[in-house]
Amino acid sequence: MARIEFAKGVKEEVVPDVRLTRSKDGSNGRAIFYFQNPQALDPEFGEEITGMYLIDEEGEMVTREVKGKFVNGQAEAVEAIYPIKSEKEWDRFMRFMERYAEENGLGFSKA
Amino acid sequence: MARIEFAKGVKEEVVPDVRLTRSKDGSNGRAIFYFQNPQALDPEFGEEITGMYLIDEEGEMVTREVKGKFVNGQAEAVEAIYPIKSEKEWDRFMRFMERYAEENGLGFSKA
Repeated sequence: MARIEFAKGVKEEVVPDVRLTRSKDGSNGRAIFYFQNPQALDPEFGEEITGMYLIDEEGEMVTREVKGKFVNGQAEAVEAIYPIKSEKEWDRFMRFMERYAEENGLGFSKA
Repeated sequence: MARIEFAKGVKEEVVPDVRLTRSKDGSNGRAIFYFQNPQALDPEFGEEITGMYLIDEEGEMVTREVKGKFVNGQAEAVEAIYPIKSEKEWDRFMRFMERYAEENGLGFSKA
């Protein structure tokens, strides 16, 4: 079980692209999630976006770095950045991604 | 440092797409690497493909499940399957992939 939520208890069904960046020494980095037209931007969503929650059987990770992308005044996408600050955090994050990727048909490919 | 080789000591420069599959109970699965026109298929390659080697600072993983894909008698792609048999192997494999993905501009996206 692995899911992403923008408001607690509400699963986002749109599956993002995810890019990884990492510092030269490997200790820290960022995962950049890009959601095209996510449900969370739907006018009917009816919940406040309080962050991006990554939830699996081990627990929950959260980032507050969530931004809307607007084109001609219309919200079109959400970009969320999950910062990773240690080897241990990388391992934990990748266990989530591995579960999420497998459940949602994501693979690794050229960005 | 993370690299893939088809013959020991010869880095494959073509970057694959990688799909992950996993059993329901999560304990085992497979990573399926797909290389379009890899250097290893070049008539000038001059080395025998002995397996697919995944190499990083932690060491080396190898699979012998490497197959050529032929179209009209022409070798066009290589598919290699890396089997994963435990949680520990998943963690190790994902540490490799995280390094390889970051160095080669791979991200997670819909297969």
